[in-house]
Amino acid sequence: MKGLASRLGRLGTESAFEVARQANEWATAGNQVFPFHIGDFNIPTPERVVEAMNRAIADGKTGYCQPPGIPELRNALAEDVGQLRGIDYALENVIIQPGGKPTIGKFIMAVMEPGDEVLTPSPGFPIYESLIEFHEGKAVPYTFYEEEGEFFLDFDQLKAGITPKTTMLMFNNNHNPTAAESPREELEALAEICLENDLWVLSDEAYIETRYEGQSQSIASLPGMAERTVILYTFSKRFAMTGWRVGASIGPPEVMEIIGQLNVNDESCTNHFAQWAMIDALAGGDVMCRPIIDKLRVRRDLTCQLLNGIEGVSVGVPASTFYVYPDVTEVVEKLGFNNTIELQEDVLRETGVAFCPRAYFGTPLPDEPRHYVRLAYAGIGQADIREGLARFKDYCEA
Amino acid sequence: MKGLASRLGRLGTESAFEVARQANEWATAGNQVFPFHIGDFNIPTPERVVEAMNRAIADGKTGYCQPPGIPELRNALAEDVGQLRGIDYALENVIIQPGGKPTIGKFIMAVMEPGDEVLTPSPGFPIYESLIEFHEGKAVPYTFYEEEGEFFLDFDQLKAGITPKTTMLMFNNNHNPTAAESPREELEALAEICLENDLWVLSDEAYIETRYEGQSQSIASLPGMAERTVILYTFSKRFAMTGWRVGASIGPPEVMEIIGQLNVNDESCTNHFAQWAMIDALAGGDVMCRPIIDKLRVRRDLTCQLLNGIEGVSVGVPASTFYVYPDVTEVVEKLGFNNTIELQEDVLRETGVAFCPRAYFGTPLPDEPRHYVRLAYAGIGQADIREGLARFKDYCEA
Repeated sequence: MKGLASRLGRLGTESAFEVARQANEWATAGNQVFPFHIGDFNIPTPERVVEAMNRAIADGKTGYCQPPGIPELRNALAEDVGQLRGIDYALENVIIQPGGKPTIGKFIMAVMEPGDEVLTPSPGFPIYESLIEFHEGKAVPYTFYEEEGEFFLDFDQLKAGITPKTTMLMFNNNHNPTAAESPREELEALAEICLENDLWVLSDEAYIETRYEGQSQSIASLPGMAERTVILYTFSKRFAMTGWRVGASIGPPEVMEIIGQLNVNDESCTNHFAQWAMIDALAGGDVMCRPIIDKLRVRRDLTCQLLNGIEGVSVGVPASTFYVYPDVTEVVEKLGFNNTIELQEDVLRETGVAFCPRAYFGTPLPDEPRHYVRLAYAGIGQADIREGLARFKDYCEA
Repeated sequence: MKGLASRLGRLGTESAFEVARQANEWATAGNQVFPFHIGDFNIPTPERVVEAMNRAIADGKTGYCQPPGIPELRNALAEDVGQLRGIDYALENVIIQPGGKPTIGKFIMAVMEPGDEVLTPSPGFPIYESLIEFHEGKAVPYTFYEEEGEFFLDFDQLKAGITPKTTMLMFNNNHNPTAAESPREELEALAEICLENDLWVLSDEAYIETRYEGQSQSIASLPGMAERTVILYTFSKRFAMTGWRVGASIGPPEVMEIIGQLNVNDESCTNHFAQWAMIDALAGGDVMCRPIIDKLRVRRDLTCQLLNGIEGVSVGVPASTFYVYPDVTEVVEKLGFNNTIELQEDVLRETGVAFCPRAYFGTPLPDEPRHYVRLAYAGIGQADIREGLARFKDYCEA
């Protein structure tokens, strides 16, 4: 047989699924697993959204719709997203996608030439790096530094990565995995860099509405940015509906037109009746989602409190996302591990606690000073948080 | 701004959506439209499937599932698809997709190198050509000849297109748009060519179960073919559920592993609860789908009878698909059009009848001797078929 294509050598993956595989294996073997590893919910989608979906089915919305999405949802999303961000979006700024993720590859294919360089957060969502390299670009990492449990952009390092070939910035405020959120002055400095260097921006806003205090900000809101920014929007996290697969690309019409054409080629359209249900989800909005946020807040507080009670572990209390990114350097060193992959695998075997090591969030930079892991608390209830972190405490302090 | 990527110059589209756009515009302006243009249903999805979906939602299947699909559905599909085709498929041969279409691009990315040549049906589904060229291959057309309303592969022309760079064959038995179906000896000759030239095969089997008489055959069933063939499977046409977006890639495990990795990168997973519903759809199977087929059969007979009653139009009665591909050469010539795009646009304006011109199914070959158009009858009831084709008859015979 002629074999597989050489481009596959450049394709990465999302290694959280690797932890999920190990955790499943461990559970199947009869062990209890404490699922802090994956960004998913054990909270049901609001009933109202399911009811709206069934009305759409009864109304015959089981056939194809237009590849960019139904106009009614594109309009509703333009208004909802525009309002929160103070941007004047309309239908032609919105292309519906089967989830948040499809925006990453489609935006890259729309604007990145082979050989172009793309500023990419590391740690960060690993699919950025994978798809940049797969489509023949070069992912150039930028990173964060920690101050008392909060993470800030390392601007010196980011600026040093810029060359004439830099085309795009991947930016994920309300950041996975660190939960970092840029204060206004960071956003402004970042926007200035994008304008100066004429960069496209992917603003991954998957977690912008998963917040407990304060106000979210989008880099697209800053002067001159909306026309160079494509927002990755998803209903997944806001409405506890990761398995429905509905999201959107939101940005300048000339890029949206291309992304719509990629929809025609890649999947025809997103589930038709689910799109109708999303109109109801947006109408229900934050009021409908409050019970989800309230539940997550309790888990966040509990998780942070218990983690900070472990010797050699420390973590801040993030105002958004459902992730925490504790510093576990002392534990790694005490137990003689070389990295957090070794720690993660041993902790799973010894305690059933599953989380993701730093290495699963993009290629680590040389000489990272500290060791971190990511715990997600959207898919694990209070009792299991208590039990799991008690076991983890025993493990760390043994 | 840095502008858009040059690869977009190679990206095509599915121009049936262009006819849909024109038809919508015409309808919005207050005119009646007779929708023969798009491969979609005005028939509801069987109730049993909707009920199964709601059970899955109530059972909490609203979160992510594994990127290759839920094992229960992969197993069920392996059995169902394997049984009809006489092939021994298992879970690792099946990767669930959000529709039939995603298999095309993912298989191309998995096996085709830039510069490779791919044998592509013309007329044929235009997305093959679009994605081959987009991913830097070269689509080399092969075609069909008509004998008394039936279409057969032009083997001389197909063989003449083979070079040392030929890597893949795109094959769509139960063919869109001609409804061509290869008799056994054609399939065998085609398989021999694939084996001799060591070709990968995409077997687009979207319509294999949409049949009125006889027995469908898959090229994957022939000796030596399953290991080089990826089947594009979709639930869309069999179960009248085009808008649900569930399908699968089915083929050799080493290719399926790559396609699963592309799922991780492109969309995480297909709608989780819809996958559970598909297990019920497969259990209901052909018995559950009989009312759909019975309805389509009546429409097929009516459509063919009425078309054949128009002076200058002739068409065979296909045993499968919901398409007919009448020869309209005499009408085109009588009315002085240069091609069927001109005919299609004029017919829509004059009568409201919407169908697709030949040119929307891949780049036409030089010197095609006859003019054809495609009519689909899955989305139009008997009364509208009668009225629309009466208007088309008046138009043609005026």
